Amino acid sequence: MAKLVLIRHGQSEWNALNLFNGWVDTKLSDKGIAQAKEAGQLLAEEGIQFDQAYTSVLTRAITTLHLALEEADQLWVPEVKSWRLNERHYGALQGLNKADAATKWGDEQVHQWRRSYDVLPPLLEEQTETMTIDGKSYPAMDRRYQDVPAGELPKGENLKVTLERVLPFWDSDISKALKDGKNVVIGAHGNSLRALVKHIEQISDEDIMGVEIANGQPWVYDLDEDLNVVSKKILKPEA
Amino acid sequence: MAKLVLIRHGQSEWNALNLFNGWVDTKLSDKGIAQAKEAGQLLAEEGIQFDQAYTSVLTRAITTLHLALEEADQLWVPEVKSWRLNERHYGALQGLNKADAATKWGDEQVHQWRRSYDVLPPLLEEQTETMTIDGKSYPAMDRRYQDVPAGELPKGENLKVTLERVLPFWDSDISKALKDGKNVVIGAHGNSLRALVKHIEQISDEDIMGVEIANGQPWVYDLDEDLNVVSKKILKPEA
Repeated sequence: MAKLVLIRHGQSEWNALNLFNGWVDTKLSDKGIAQAKEAGQLLAEEGIQFDQAYTSVLTRAITTLHLALEEADQLWVPEVKSWRLNERHYGALQGLNKADAATKWGDEQVHQWRRSYDVLPPLLEEQTETMTIDGKSYPAMDRRYQDVPAGELPKGENLKVTLERVLPFWDSDISKALKDGKNVVIGAHGNSLRALVKHIEQISDEDIMGVEIANGQPWVYDLDEDLNVVSKKILKPEA
Repeated sequence: MAKLVLIRHGQSEWNALNLFNGWVDTKLSDKGIAQAKEAGQLLAEEGIQFDQAYTSVLTRAITTLHLALEEADQLWVPEVKSWRLNERHYGALQGLNKADAATKWGDEQVHQWRRSYDVLPPLLEEQTETMTIDGKSYPAMDRRYQDVPAGELPKGENLKVTLERVLPFWDSDISKALKDGKNVVIGAHGNSLRALVKHIEQISDEDIMGVEIANGQPWVYDLDEDLNVVSKKILKPEA
């Protein structure tokens, strides 16, 4: 038996502005920082003792994990970061306001990009594109991806493709730690976590799109040694 | 050629109270948080790009490293934590006020414990001792050390013994990364860093005790492929 806890990052600066975020490396908003600390308090109240932490290479997920672990007095837990836990890559939509995108392409098209399992968003032409917003530069890719084989880096993803690049890391690292009986915490993103939830709970392509993981509300699974779900609960702050 | 950057944690809550800190897991004070962020700004101005980070398993060092790396937009850098980078273990002096210790044992004795290379402080009787200060419990050891062979855990250290337990991690991990040409940052403690500086700069037992590494002021080394020091500078905020 091992525990697996999933934490979606707190609100980011771009979430607050209603921009498509994807792989663009934005920071937590003040609200996001508070959500991350609250996640840590909920974990401390639950009394879960972690052995291993995983996170993406995006600042908003890493910071959320660190704030939560510090709040739970477990910042010392070993941590591994992987680009495979990154958010779904939103292609050429990254940096656009969701309302502006709906005006440009129509509500239905944007809804389909956001809510269908296997429709790709408009792709980036080059992975080296850099956008500038409010005077700050946001590269689509940078030095942190230098060791990833170029063919594996996305220019835009749907949830299906996201799941396909998350799974190798689940198989190589996370599932092994769980099978060793380690309690694992993952600090990641709405769609990389949704991909994991689909895999763990064996949810259909259609149903998974209706699953919402709220910012900073830990999902706690008890898994048996074959990684079947024994029980599950979602930790929420008191209303 | 590779760069090695050493960062001593910002002021801790116990530093601020003038208590012997050692392995007791205290947090940064507000001043310490500001010092850590300032270290990150200095690294950003210097333009150093890191490939690998190391830190201890004590919160004040980990938090300092994270705040500095986030400030330098490099929180994504891979990180390994090791108990071997912990502060010097201060034995039975941990949690005592430095002035009270001087009253009890005399100025000269306390000075010797603090400033001699090879005199041990009074040892803890048991590694399982827990102290309570201001209603909060501080265990001498806890779950984070569960994988360390019991014989290797200290009950009190001088700088000589600290160096002896830091070096195996330098040899197994840090020096290998540097020889691979990786730029390395280490977030650690006054005495574990002093031990590394002694080794890297080949400083005598006597002279090393006069070396002071200030909180949050990064020491930047350029090392050749045999890890000889090519150049060194200390980054300080403008006065």
